[in-house]
Amino acid sequence: MVIRRNCFKNLKNSYLFPEISRRKNLFLEKNPEAKLISLGIGDTVLPFGPILTKALTTASIELGTEEGYIGYGDEQGMYELREKIASEIYKNQISPDEIFISDGAKCDIGRLQTLFGNDIRIGLQDPSYPVYIEGSILQGIDKITCIPCPFTYNFFPELSKIPPIDLLYICSPNNPTGAVYTHEELQQLVSYAKSKKILILFDGAYSSYIQDPALPRTIFEIDGAKEVAIEVNSFSKYAGFTGLRLGWSVIPRELAYEGGESIWKDWKRLNATIFNGASILSQKGGIAVFKKEGMDEIQFRINYYMKNARELKSAFVSLGYQVFGGENAPYLWVQVPKQNSWDIFQ
Amino acid sequence: MVIRRNCFKNLKNSYLFPEISRRKNLFLEKNPEAKLISLGIGDTVLPFGPILTKALTTASIELGTEEGYIGYGDEQGMYELREKIASEIYKNQISPDEIFISDGAKCDIGRLQTLFGNDIRIGLQDPSYPVYIEGSILQGIDKITCIPCPFTYNFFPELSKIPPIDLLYICSPNNPTGAVYTHEELQQLVSYAKSKKILILFDGAYSSYIQDPALPRTIFEIDGAKEVAIEVNSFSKYAGFTGLRLGWSVIPRELAYEGGESIWKDWKRLNATIFNGASILSQKGGIAVFKKEGMDEIQFRINYYMKNARELKSAFVSLGYQVFGGENAPYLWVQVPKQNSWDIFQ
Repeated sequence: MVIRRNCFKNLKNSYLFPEISRRKNLFLEKNPEAKLISLGIGDTVLPFGPILTKALTTASIELGTEEGYIGYGDEQGMYELREKIASEIYKNQISPDEIFISDGAKCDIGRLQTLFGNDIRIGLQDPSYPVYIEGSILQGIDKITCIPCPFTYNFFPELSKIPPIDLLYICSPNNPTGAVYTHEELQQLVSYAKSKKILILFDGAYSSYIQDPALPRTIFEIDGAKEVAIEVNSFSKYAGFTGLRLGWSVIPRELAYEGGESIWKDWKRLNATIFNGASILSQKGGIAVFKKEGMDEIQFRINYYMKNARELKSAFVSLGYQVFGGENAPYLWVQVPKQNSWDIFQ
Repeated sequence: MVIRRNCFKNLKNSYLFPEISRRKNLFLEKNPEAKLISLGIGDTVLPFGPILTKALTTASIELGTEEGYIGYGDEQGMYELREKIASEIYKNQISPDEIFISDGAKCDIGRLQTLFGNDIRIGLQDPSYPVYIEGSILQGIDKITCIPCPFTYNFFPELSKIPPIDLLYICSPNNPTGAVYTHEELQQLVSYAKSKKILILFDGAYSSYIQDPALPRTIFEIDGAKEVAIEVNSFSKYAGFTGLRLGWSVIPRELAYEGGESIWKDWKRLNATIFNGASILSQKGGIAVFKKEGMDEIQFRINYYMKNARELKSAFVSLGYQVFGGENAPYLWVQVPKQNSWDIFQ
């Protein structure tokens, strides 16, 4: 019989969010009257707006007609959607050909880890989104370095302290600290990555929450990024429909392995082999939100979640805590110097 | 910069279906008047029936209401859908807890390959669905044995000729040969797997095409299968909606690694970590097709595709070919003793 992979022993007992859910349910059992505000997983609560609902019902009806039926779509995603992302998000600095539609950033990160295998040295921001480390462990990677990103440094990695690595995960707006990196910071990062031959995996899932127009919304606003960076992103946060499972990745054509072979080519091959594209309906929903009225619906949601973030922030501040984030990201980072995270959660 | 994984060099130039598509498009460019019948990828052509369309529009409208909104769902899938699968497909011999809803069998196979890693010996039926071998290569597995499954043997592997392996892929109804294995054959297989400590990965994606009630529709109809088998399945073929991306896997609770640890537990963990569940809408569609009228819609589609298979079969037979399948599977296997497959395709 198959032998259990060692890597499973290196994972914590349970993935973060099911554990939060377990503790929450236990608490509610004991305190059935409690009105809990969940500060766990970054989920959405506002229902679909009428533009999205209309797009989904129309698409469902079309799929029920001979002319409108689509079976398997392009594994890379509907061209119309890739074109919209290229123009709306990347101002045509990225071509539709370099965009791969997926069922979400988390799933894309898992597949990207398969793309690079277990024989690489990875660097993670500390703190960071748990999928980066747990997905890497599941891939069998054992050369994992956590790079301190202290609040005194805008939660940005101190570049001079990064040991030799091959792949660096960077998230901006940052989950979980709410930090957003500036043009200068990201330019330093890209230059550093070029000089040290490090590939950047840039997670921009919360980019639509950036309010300050001076802050970069994608790594590809930075000169030279196309030679060193991959970006993942998500409609879950961008358009507030976590349950539809839609995201995308960007792999520039010029991005190359050591030795010069194309990473884009292997990513395309891998997606065709172990992935089969996102749901057609979700993709139709994605196309709809890029219309003028669709964008208004998105903005309404972003404003709502940002208002919540500001209110929570002022509540924590009024309780005397030092709080980061909540200005260009829905995340707050609350300093609790004398307690560990689970204690304060509890 | 990251180094290209060796495994990519071991893959063929392109995945089968994009290559078929490339050749088809090239042919159509040169022969714009040709009326082609695509015999490539097993895609669907019939539009959604009214029950499915209704379920999808209703769900879209509900997701646009405060009471009906759902964000992230259970990573394992909606309980109602898992219950339907448990009762309708597995006659409650499998519990909803052992069913994991996915975005399709192909994607599940990719994740299952991550579950078991690269240090296992796998056995494949020859011929077989290309994802088994290509996904394994992508996982970095190099101990791959192709087990001849000749037509003289119902395309079933000759058990006595299987070398030592840890994991065996079995597909019934078989893609691509159209063979369906009998109770006796699968009972022999399960007994053999038990005695040799082999895990069976059973792909039942085409089970709804079985016409003969004497043939098993799932490996779990076989005594002892729960100790040695995982099953993957798909709504793409079951309900004819390839583009919605919905499937499931079954991992019995008692299934254990060498040493006794639970495989189920690691599968649950892996799904929560690098997957995030299938689209809520697709799942609502899945629930609808299990209703009485939904089942009628499915049956209509199956009958249509099976009629096509029978007509193609009789056409090939009348041309003098020996043809297998097409009776309990939509697949036909046409013997072309003196030509290779690409030549006859061309």
